[in-house]
Amino acid sequence: MPETWQDIAARKQRQRTDRIPKAWLVPASHLTATNNSGNVLDVPRRCGVLASQEIHITEDLDATALVAGLATGKLKSVDVVTAFCKRAAIAQQSVNCLTEIFFDDAIARAKQLDEQFKKTGKPVGSLHGLPISIKDSFKVKGYDVSIGVAGFCFKPATINSALVEVLLEQGAVLYCKTNVPLTMMALDSHNNVFGRTLNPANTALTAGGSSGGEGALVAMRGSPIGVGTDVGGSIRIPAMCNGLVGVKPSHGRVPYAGQEGGALPGSSKIGIESTAGPIARNVRDCEMLLRAVGDGQPWLFDPDVLPQSWEQQGSLHTGSPTTKAGRPLRVGIVRTDGHVTPLPPIQRLLDEVARTLRSSTLPSRDTIEVVDVDISKLGPQLLKVFNGVMSIDGANTWFDHIEATGESLSPWLATRLRRRPQKSLDEVRKLQAQKLELQSEFMKVWKESGGYWARGGKQSSGDLDVIICPVAPHPVPPIDRWNTTNYTSAFNLLDLPSGVLPVRTFAESDMEGDLPRGEPLNGWDKINQGLWTEIDRKVYVGSVMSVQIVAPKLMDRRLVESMAVLEKALAPLREVSGKASKL
Amino acid sequence: MPETWQDIAARKQRQRTDRIPKAWLVPASHLTATNNSGNVLDVPRRCGVLASQEIHITEDLDATALVAGLATGKLKSVDVVTAFCKRAAIAQQSVNCLTEIFFDDAIARAKQLDEQFKKTGKPVGSLHGLPISIKDSFKVKGYDVSIGVAGFCFKPATINSALVEVLLEQGAVLYCKTNVPLTMMALDSHNNVFGRTLNPANTALTAGGSSGGEGALVAMRGSPIGVGTDVGGSIRIPAMCNGLVGVKPSHGRVPYAGQEGGALPGSSKIGIESTAGPIARNVRDCEMLLRAVGDGQPWLFDPDVLPQSWEQQGSLHTGSPTTKAGRPLRVGIVRTDGHVTPLPPIQRLLDEVARTLRSSTLPSRDTIEVVDVDISKLGPQLLKVFNGVMSIDGANTWFDHIEATGESLSPWLATRLRRRPQKSLDEVRKLQAQKLELQSEFMKVWKESGGYWARGGKQSSGDLDVIICPVAPHPVPPIDRWNTTNYTSAFNLLDLPSGVLPVRTFAESDMEGDLPRGEPLNGWDKINQGLWTEIDRKVYVGSVMSVQIVAPKLMDRRLVESMAVLEKALAPLREVSGKASKL
Repeated sequence: MPETWQDIAARKQRQRTDRIPKAWLVPASHLTATNNSGNVLDVPRRCGVLASQEIHITEDLDATALVAGLATGKLKSVDVVTAFCKRAAIAQQSVNCLTEIFFDDAIARAKQLDEQFKKTGKPVGSLHGLPISIKDSFKVKGYDVSIGVAGFCFKPATINSALVEVLLEQGAVLYCKTNVPLTMMALDSHNNVFGRTLNPANTALTAGGSSGGEGALVAMRGSPIGVGTDVGGSIRIPAMCNGLVGVKPSHGRVPYAGQEGGALPGSSKIGIESTAGPIARNVRDCEMLLRAVGDGQPWLFDPDVLPQSWEQQGSLHTGSPTTKAGRPLRVGIVRTDGHVTPLPPIQRLLDEVARTLRSSTLPSRDTIEVVDVDISKLGPQLLKVFNGVMSIDGANTWFDHIEATGESLSPWLATRLRRRPQKSLDEVRKLQAQKLELQSEFMKVWKESGGYWARGGKQSSGDLDVIICPVAPHPVPPIDRWNTTNYTSAFNLLDLPSGVLPVRTFAESDMEGDLPRGEPLNGWDKINQGLWTEIDRKVYVGSVMSVQIVAPKLMDRRLVESMAVLEKALAPLREVSGKASKL
Repeated sequence: MPETWQDIAARKQRQRTDRIPKAWLVPASHLTATNNSGNVLDVPRRCGVLASQEIHITEDLDATALVAGLATGKLKSVDVVTAFCKRAAIAQQSVNCLTEIFFDDAIARAKQLDEQFKKTGKPVGSLHGLPISIKDSFKVKGYDVSIGVAGFCFKPATINSALVEVLLEQGAVLYCKTNVPLTMMALDSHNNVFGRTLNPANTALTAGGSSGGEGALVAMRGSPIGVGTDVGGSIRIPAMCNGLVGVKPSHGRVPYAGQEGGALPGSSKIGIESTAGPIARNVRDCEMLLRAVGDGQPWLFDPDVLPQSWEQQGSLHTGSPTTKAGRPLRVGIVRTDGHVTPLPPIQRLLDEVARTLRSSTLPSRDTIEVVDVDISKLGPQLLKVFNGVMSIDGANTWFDHIEATGESLSPWLATRLRRRPQKSLDEVRKLQAQKLELQSEFMKVWKESGGYWARGGKQSSGDLDVIICPVAPHPVPPIDRWNTTNYTSAFNLLDLPSGVLPVRTFAESDMEGDLPRGEPLNGWDKINQGLWTEIDRKVYVGSVMSVQIVAPKLMDRRLVESMAVLEKALAPLREVSGKASKL
């Protein structure tokens, strides 16, 4: 009799537990939140497993500082890697964020790197000795790439994904993979094999998905920087849920070859491309990782990656054929997608952001110009085409995967996913034509003459550098309540690089605010309103509110450099919120 | 009663003739070749229409020299444009290479540009005042984009193609569009509306296709530089047939948006992308055009174009993250695709090229290393997948187009094209997966460790810069006898930039050489052998023999810079062939 999915899951979870050294196991009583706060972020500090030096390494140094210490020999990789392995083990026990664990391999590699450094006096690559966590969908030779599907378990990968090769060549140390939702199309990271990942800042709220394990792990400081993937928001949504910075690059920047996505080979070529990108605690860490990948000749590892190093991409600051130096950063504020109206606190946030940027007093080269942009005409079309492209195979391949062992759908999926007929070739061709048409139309959004600048357009005299818009029309919602993805998925369909920037925490005063009068725009808008009217709004207090930054296609460096300027410009809002410790 | 295609064609041809000023019409007796040579290249010189200054402008100056003269005011655009309009009119009368003629608009624009130059003392753009001819498939507002289909005639375009916008912004002057084959998938430029374009060097040979009108026009010096398009060889084949340099860029370099290809919208996204590129008399002209386009922010005109200027692309010479300076050019010689064995003169040509490069005595920075590369394993797979991708819609759309007015197929197509069932979505997905797999596999070809270096690999110590291979397994064949496209189309499937370089003319002694013993490899190989055994080989004498140069994906600048080095290195062969005047 074939093994049931329950048996496989139990065996898989045992394997996972067995890979955590006994000394790092924490009594259950130490793993829960104090004061019913739902906040377990302090578990690593108080559980007694970490030495004070390990708390220092994991909390006080960001990835950039770690790399600097490792590259100069001030830090030893074995110390850094061990600290993060321990903290990841604690995070796993607290919020169930890991899938594959390879601490032993990691520590052995760290020792080798230290040896080599000692011998040569030089770092191996631009990520020398840095521990990096990766989403379960990446292949690491010798370890499963189950993406939480029972039928995929205990079939170790025989190759490394292209990005894994690049990271290793740059001297990174991989030590664990992180949890995902079943199908990776859900927005709450639950699957039948590994269970549900919790949000460490508030276990009543969702950790987001599909890179939810990454989000929770980085938030717990169980990883200095993680790599997720994003086809509709799967980097940006968990970044928002966990108060982190996340960047979804354009297709063709970061190698995605050799990824397990559960789809049949060639599907993305007739549908939509997913991309891989960083989740970290600040913009400079994301930039550091993207630079390391970009300068690591990633095009030698994946035929879809462009031969253009980070250096060769136009910089916002120095000027280049793609950008001009010595002029203000031009930002367009998008307040709604025209499909689901953001709830009052999100509207307030966007207003505050616009106001803060308009009155920003940063040094002159970081002057900011703000215009209002109205894309509400395009939003519903973008959603329709995205939904079409995402349902080309009618979920049949995924139902085949889970029915092979009799799995049931995760809660978030249960009401949303069912087998439908596969689309016809003509329908797919038309979807691709519509996608291209929307991409062409959206090029106008960046230009004053394009017809999308709503107000205040007169003050600017050139194209926009970036757009700022909501990540979602609601704050971080309770478990399994994430509603629509259009605010993020629109930029997957358009293939525009986009990132999430935490701004401030949700305050008591943010519980105020009325919905617009009149009927909801549609069923999704109605569900969204339910997140305001059918819920005790107190659950949102203390959660992080974030905005999304979007740049023109393949302007990934401009995106990240703009995010750094905005991170600085928006710092006053963060300080006012008085919860800076959580960011 | 609806107009028949014959009526439409007659009306269209009248329109075309009416657009040539009476004074530029040449008596039929002056249009034919002397001595039954089939060579009409000297018609413009001897027909009496051109003043000696016009002969000088059109013959002695290449596009680069013209641009230099125009940019400094030494040449007036109106003189240059008028000279090429006149010569194009003569070319049209000799070899039937034009479709749309807009000489009046061009001369008016040239005058405006001259005025502006006079006023400002500066050129309008990097192509200031230069006449450029374009393939009929480009849209120019106010003129038909019939691509030789009767049902498409007399429906003027309402927009400019993206590339047309870029060229105009750079100051170019468009003055005519050029002939194509019916369906643009044929390799001899015949259609029912405009008829057949002839090869001006030998009217018994094919002018090639699908950018055959461009090839013939540039060969006649009726254009300093033309822009064609290529989805299987449509730039490179007419470049070879007409002894010219042609470059097919990677997808994403030169804007292709707003092109009329006869396919339903979105087809290329599930099939294969065509690209636009230059046909000119030498490499520096092709480089000049690609640089002008690349530096003209083409990504603002087409969402598929990468934001990477020519300058931002790695140069072969100065070194960059994508290339290293100060080391030899590394060339791999590919002698066969493993599907159709090149005929003896092509094999001889490749041997000569390899030998010449190995003994090249160019300045040290142009030192050349040569290795032999064997991709015969991949060739047949590339052909199979390419044929699959090209027949996704079973030619049904095209049959609909031509049956609308009762057109019949052109001779080359008659035996090759018929309605077939449209492929299923699953078949298309599998083809895309196979394409990606071949692209991944081909990345190994560039590396010594990849397993494709056949002999002489030891002498090199790094990846290849370019591959040299045949353009076809035969010399320029008689009309309607072009056989297989795998030597060119393989690089469309792989999306590798590739160009054609003329080497020398076919000599009397090239008529010698035996076929390999044994059976042909397959039906295509047998047909190819027929081009050696069933034909009076004398027809080939004097035709130009060319090679193809191929670079890694998106290394378009490296391709063109390598072609310039090779053009110089192979010059001795050209001089020996003693027919340099024809090149």
